[in-house]
Amino acid sequence: MERIVARYYIETPLQPEAAAAILAGEQSSGTFVAVPGETEELKARFAARVESVKHLETVDIPAIPGGAGFQKGPFHRAAIEISWSIENCGYNLPVLISTVQGNLYELSAFTGLKLMDLEIPASFAQHFAGPAFGIEGCRRLTGVQGRPLIGTIIKPSIGMTPRQTAELVQTLAGAGIDFIKDDELLSAAANSSFEDRVTAVMKVINDHADKTGKKIMYAFNLSAEMDTMLRRYETLVKAGATCAMVSLNSVGLSGVKKLGDLRTLPIHGHRNGWGMLNRHPLLGIEFPAYQKIWRLAGVDQIHVNGIQNKFWESDDSVVRSIEACLTPFLGGYSILPVVSSGQWGGQAPETYRRTRTVDLLYMAGGGIMAHPDGPAGGVTALREAWQAAVEGLSVEEGAKKFPAFGKSVQKFGSK
Amino acid sequence: MERIVARYYIETPLQPEAAAAILAGEQSSGTFVAVPGETEELKARFAARVESVKHLETVDIPAIPGGAGFQKGPFHRAAIEISWSIENCGYNLPVLISTVQGNLYELSAFTGLKLMDLEIPASFAQHFAGPAFGIEGCRRLTGVQGRPLIGTIIKPSIGMTPRQTAELVQTLAGAGIDFIKDDELLSAAANSSFEDRVTAVMKVINDHADKTGKKIMYAFNLSAEMDTMLRRYETLVKAGATCAMVSLNSVGLSGVKKLGDLRTLPIHGHRNGWGMLNRHPLLGIEFPAYQKIWRLAGVDQIHVNGIQNKFWESDDSVVRSIEACLTPFLGGYSILPVVSSGQWGGQAPETYRRTRTVDLLYMAGGGIMAHPDGPAGGVTALREAWQAAVEGLSVEEGAKKFPAFGKSVQKFGSK
Repeated sequence: MERIVARYYIETPLQPEAAAAILAGEQSSGTFVAVPGETEELKARFAARVESVKHLETVDIPAIPGGAGFQKGPFHRAAIEISWSIENCGYNLPVLISTVQGNLYELSAFTGLKLMDLEIPASFAQHFAGPAFGIEGCRRLTGVQGRPLIGTIIKPSIGMTPRQTAELVQTLAGAGIDFIKDDELLSAAANSSFEDRVTAVMKVINDHADKTGKKIMYAFNLSAEMDTMLRRYETLVKAGATCAMVSLNSVGLSGVKKLGDLRTLPIHGHRNGWGMLNRHPLLGIEFPAYQKIWRLAGVDQIHVNGIQNKFWESDDSVVRSIEACLTPFLGGYSILPVVSSGQWGGQAPETYRRTRTVDLLYMAGGGIMAHPDGPAGGVTALREAWQAAVEGLSVEEGAKKFPAFGKSVQKFGSK
Repeated sequence: MERIVARYYIETPLQPEAAAAILAGEQSSGTFVAVPGETEELKARFAARVESVKHLETVDIPAIPGGAGFQKGPFHRAAIEISWSIENCGYNLPVLISTVQGNLYELSAFTGLKLMDLEIPASFAQHFAGPAFGIEGCRRLTGVQGRPLIGTIIKPSIGMTPRQTAELVQTLAGAGIDFIKDDELLSAAANSSFEDRVTAVMKVINDHADKTGKKIMYAFNLSAEMDTMLRRYETLVKAGATCAMVSLNSVGLSGVKKLGDLRTLPIHGHRNGWGMLNRHPLLGIEFPAYQKIWRLAGVDQIHVNGIQNKFWESDDSVVRSIEACLTPFLGGYSILPVVSSGQWGGQAPETYRRTRTVDLLYMAGGGIMAHPDGPAGGVTALREAWQAAVEGLSVEEGAKKFPAFGKSVQKFGSK
């Protein structure tokens, strides 16, 4: 029988083997006294199994305060693997999450616990269609090949009217942008209803497409209650929009899966709230595990932060996230990594050097709008930055060769 | 205009006032350079506002590693209040979550950030019906007044067939139980389909109700994708079931809200995964904020852990959670706190002493099934424990006065 494998980075005052056994018990059939009905046969079929325990460093101070009786060190760190039979939860993502990421964080025996990665059995491919578009589908819809899609976020995040947003989209269309998105803070504000924004923005985008043949992908943030999201999705389809944005953590798995199943629009998955789940080195979940869940749910684009970002995350972590997205999963399930946060093009050479890919949606905000030659200069600068990157040039070399990028370097290079 | 207020416990190497201003900017209209369209008028209407900053302790070692440029202490802790106009997100729970609990955790300026509580404007009451049953509704359905509802969880967590589960329910019915639930690990296992389990269990419960007039509330775990959950909800209604259980964090807000809106069955909200969101003292969310979101979504019962529990959580935290649930919200939105984890009755006196309430769903597992006189003795012991608690007796005094509870104390008292 196939098994789901979860890898954890743990810290415990117990021997790691003992702590791993507690986790496996709690997440299959544990309680504090033996109960009737818990036969050996039943255990063999449904009990979680400790597959491996690899000892790592030992520390004196716990990463997270332990429960009563577990506060005395030393604290042992280890990499462990736990597996469950596919018979336990079947092809049910929420119950899979409750199994690999549920009450285990409550266990006193752990002073640190992070879900690092998941191994999902091949048979999941028969039950989850996955991203309907992925990298190829997003390239096809935008007509962009051989370089990253260049995108931007409507700023200010919140407060612009549909007319103001449409005017900005008009400017960005003229500048040659490939992709635009709402901010995650904006879905329907008092002065910008979802429907009015869609009407105003799609008029600009459709007109521009009619004239030039280039259709900008605009990710409208439809995050809301289920029925509202389904209604908004229909609004998008009718208006000729080509992307729906959803805040993954805020909407949740069942809601996102329902949208993914519609398979008419690419799903732009925003991971806001991610820092809460990931920022502590020994609590929560790492991106390789996280992105698999959302690929199963049918997300086509997912945020990965960016090199030299304005947030707390290290470049190493960003690189790992991009690599995770680009690694085929169950033989496919293609998902487009969305690079953003303080990006202006200067990070392109380093991003390419470390990932060797142009299969990215590369987002800049101020880096486009505040370019000395205006937004058109900003978009050109970003394309040039990526050309320089692929040619193996440094930022300085690229700035010399490409004039628009050169102006970006002059303006933003010291940041 | 009404404002939503969020209270945070923060840690930062900056002056707390400066860090609070960064948070407010990021969560309304911030980017790294000024952009066109960001007028003073727009800012006044949509910008988040720092309402208060209260300085607390200063420490040398950061709670969580800071981002580049923010690694040098000292680190100042503070309690801050940030507010947003209701015009920003309207009555949309997912966008509210993205606003108060989104990218702010990513900010390098913070080496600790926890959402402590939320103030929700009165007008939300016109848009969210809230729990359809709450405490009074659950008492009405079970016929239990003046004492906690006594409940248990089917154990082993996973692996029993519908017939075995039904036999256990029969035993528990004979023992006088008020409430039974699936484990969060079980929704549909290979040997226990949801539908077969409902049929087998509800036959026992309905027969028992016909004979005795007492209808046991069984919370079937319907957690799954949206369409499956809706189908299962219908199955429950048709079978005469009186409760639907859902894993809140695994299913997510939009899915849970959709179930709550159906208003035919009480929603039992399981918070597995909570430790990941809450366990670090300076990362995540505290229960007073968390439970408000789920009350708005229509959850009728929510887990709060238990006094002297087997998990890491302190008694103080459990008491605060129970108090949060029992505090009226928007003038009502009654929700029943679910006490569980290692409970056997011995914690009843302390639970009552600290909370002065019997408005609880009090769950025991081994404490019922492993009682020396069997499950009937276990249920009796729990009722006695609560009678002793309300009479102001200590565990020892209660054990002398009540024979079944006395046997529990003998067997479980040293744990």
